[in-house]
Amino acid sequence: MMNFADSIHSAVISKKSVLVLGIDPRADQIPAVLLKRFAESVKCARRDGEPCDKADARVIYYALRSFCFDVIDACAEFVCAVKIQVAFFEELGPAGFRHLADVIKHARNRGLLVIADAKRGDIGSTSDAYARAWFAKKTLAGVDNILRADALTIAPYLGRDTFTSFEPYCKDGAGAFILCRTSNKSAIDLQDLKSNGHNIWEKTARLIDNWGAPHIGECGLSSVGAVLGATYHEEGMIARKIAKHAWFLVPGIGTQGGQAEDARCFTRRDGLGAIFNVSRGILYAYKDKQYDSFGEEGYAEAARIAAEKYRDELWEACGISR
Amino acid sequence: MMNFADSIHSAVISKKSVLVLGIDPRADQIPAVLLKRFAESVKCARRDGEPCDKADARVIYYALRSFCFDVIDACAEFVCAVKIQVAFFEELGPAGFRHLADVIKHARNRGLLVIADAKRGDIGSTSDAYARAWFAKKTLAGVDNILRADALTIAPYLGRDTFTSFEPYCKDGAGAFILCRTSNKSAIDLQDLKSNGHNIWEKTARLIDNWGAPHIGECGLSSVGAVLGATYHEEGMIARKIAKHAWFLVPGIGTQGGQAEDARCFTRRDGLGAIFNVSRGILYAYKDKQYDSFGEEGYAEAARIAAEKYRDELWEACGISR
Repeated sequence: MMNFADSIHSAVISKKSVLVLGIDPRADQIPAVLLKRFAESVKCARRDGEPCDKADARVIYYALRSFCFDVIDACAEFVCAVKIQVAFFEELGPAGFRHLADVIKHARNRGLLVIADAKRGDIGSTSDAYARAWFAKKTLAGVDNILRADALTIAPYLGRDTFTSFEPYCKDGAGAFILCRTSNKSAIDLQDLKSNGHNIWEKTARLIDNWGAPHIGECGLSSVGAVLGATYHEEGMIARKIAKHAWFLVPGIGTQGGQAEDARCFTRRDGLGAIFNVSRGILYAYKDKQYDSFGEEGYAEAARIAAEKYRDELWEACGISR
Repeated sequence: MMNFADSIHSAVISKKSVLVLGIDPRADQIPAVLLKRFAESVKCARRDGEPCDKADARVIYYALRSFCFDVIDACAEFVCAVKIQVAFFEELGPAGFRHLADVIKHARNRGLLVIADAKRGDIGSTSDAYARAWFAKKTLAGVDNILRADALTIAPYLGRDTFTSFEPYCKDGAGAFILCRTSNKSAIDLQDLKSNGHNIWEKTARLIDNWGAPHIGECGLSSVGAVLGATYHEEGMIARKIAKHAWFLVPGIGTQGGQAEDARCFTRRDGLGAIFNVSRGILYAYKDKQYDSFGEEGYAEAARIAAEKYRDELWEACGISR
């Protein structure tokens, strides 16, 4: 199994893209055209066999899944990975996880690396269970693990013990992105506290560097990465110096205020070392004035053009020369 | 809707119990007697209608669920709440979440408060989705939310923004337990770092106290609680002074090394303010030498006796006089 850091590296180079497609689909923000289509095509359980209502839960599930599929298909050639936000599926309960599994499968079938953005973090046997949940080939019930992803985001508050459970999987091709300095305002509550002259997030960056040392691939980067908010350039540059070998997963480009031209703050000198997530700016591009002409039914085409634009801007900003 | 802190208080007083039953069921550690029973009773999808194999996934799911039901039934009268460890269901994928929903429902039908131990933590719209996932009455697909719990454990690394999403639900009877000082060895990695003379976990305790201030119930305690490992008494006493109004959820009693007689370190002077989780020490009591006579088929009876014992020891240690 290829080291995860090398898998990312290979995808970045071959696709000339450091763009990650963020799949954050809110069930109440699916294009109405999809709801209408599925309301017509899904037969209700009602005895009269009438078409479903647009608000029928199954219509919403199918429309949501189709929305994800379509956007993934439209953007696949421009992105090095997809980051799927688990919370938006979790909030739909068991049915949501079924559709999450379908979306993971669809992205993998498209040859894309899948980062499950779940921010899990526990210890001991519970952390082992989370590691199995996202990386084991089979579940403890002996069936294929349909939630299996290539990488997972992880919360660091409990320290090394959380990561320990994931380590065997990192040896087998999986990756971990550990929260380091996030882009939200209240990141200051704990992450920016000073300890011995350093911020807590700098300590986290150092932990990530330590944990990742045994997992450095041929590309010189590690399968143990860090999550750093796009709007904090200075922090990005400092983190780059501390966690030299970590792949940085940088969310917050686009709608959240991060600018593609600042990408270089997060990379090594050769422009490598960071991948950048855009979620709403692609998924809901059709709502953006500049893509007005596509209309709501053109959501996939708008996503495709937005993805290409972000891909080009980020690639140029990183200045990777290969 | 009763304030969550008051709900806990009421359960503690009426049942004379500060014991929380921890449901951490590993799918590969279900009593064989249950697997055998379900293998015999569950018809396979195979055309010949033969009984299932013990390793059939459905047999494992049903046996797991039944194990949880039986232990909850056996212990219900001795515990003020159940804490369900989500990871052990998550690792079984969508099917696991379906059975988690059944276990939540079963505990609620037994009149027990349900704490979902999921340690979620995100920001903005994603954190909103997690809050809906565990507390909304209906999902965004318009159906009943079968994962709905009374309280959730939350990771604090992202600061106040994580809690903000949960606040509306706290106003409506829900509770949150935020990780403060955990009992694992590597808790020192971040939690024990010093900032301005105080540990990071003390800063977290202060945040919890602030966030919880608007959610103090008639009992004088808040619906915004803290998770503190049972083996760290001194930390417990300090945290008690900082987060005066927080209910403490204290895991780690029993198998993990915490002693019932130290319970008082986590309580207020009147003995109230902390609830104590025992998972393996009850769930797998039948494996303990002292319950040898019950045999494996006596898992529920062994759990019941262990729960009664922990309930009595903890109640005496807390010295609540009402």
